[in-house]
Amino acid sequence: MKDCIFCKIASGVLPAHKVYEDEDILAFLDIHPINPGHTLVIPKEHYKDLAETPPELASKLIQVVQKIKPAVLGAVDADSFNLGVNVGEKAGQVVFHTHFHIMPRFEDDGHQLWGGKEMDQEELDKIADKIKNSI
Amino acid sequence: MKDCIFCKIASGVLPAHKVYEDEDILAFLDIHPINPGHTLVIPKEHYKDLAETPPELASKLIQVVQKIKPAVLGAVDADSFNLGVNVGEKAGQVVFHTHFHIMPRFEDDGHQLWGGKEMDQEELDKIADKIKNSI
Repeated sequence: MKDCIFCKIASGVLPAHKVYEDEDILAFLDIHPINPGHTLVIPKEHYKDLAETPPELASKLIQVVQKIKPAVLGAVDADSFNLGVNVGEKAGQVVFHTHFHIMPRFEDDGHQLWGGKEMDQEELDKIADKIKNSI
Repeated sequence: MKDCIFCKIASGVLPAHKVYEDEDILAFLDIHPINPGHTLVIPKEHYKDLAETPPELASKLIQVVQKIKPAVLGAVDADSFNLGVNVGEKAGQVVFHTHFHIMPRFEDDGHQLWGGKEMDQEELDKIADKIKNSI
């Protein structure tokens, strides 16, 4: 897609620190890593987000994450990582071309996980019912 | 697996606010949500994390995320979400049974994304080479 930075990387028009490539998928380093080894995994074809990505291709993405994970962690001596996918502006998605973040994590690296909060059973029940009834 | 809270939920020994279930996969509300509608998607079979989960099952997990996402977001009037998977203690994994977080996001909900930092090209090159050479 014209003007999509990840399409340009996938087609070779823009350079990237590529670490893996197959027919459908490309993986390269994030240039603004949260930690060394922060890797992006994208489909070469353009879909604006995970929700729009065909299930078969989403499956390939998660399988490439699994495949390259030992190499990514090994390269930076990590044993833990967060996988993150942001869908939509309010979720912090900036590039509207599906991408999975593999983020190696280290002891005391200063990053915080999401903070959860208590919610009462009744409210949880109400939301669960709403979801169930619309699947 | 004995003593695994998610195995107990999957087998019905412990209650949960279930929103989706099929032969292999179960989805239910997180009881400490970062936002209303925060949903966990797990395989019924026990694997300690995404890295240990068979690729076919990881594919089913991501496909269920895609399948139930409209209902999850619709139930709480959201249009954005973060998908998160924590692998390993240093990544904040607490329950060692594979689970995908679907976290609806809202304008000004107070949550912050990971903060990235600048890294020089040479360092990126060095890490990319290390990864490539061990895939």
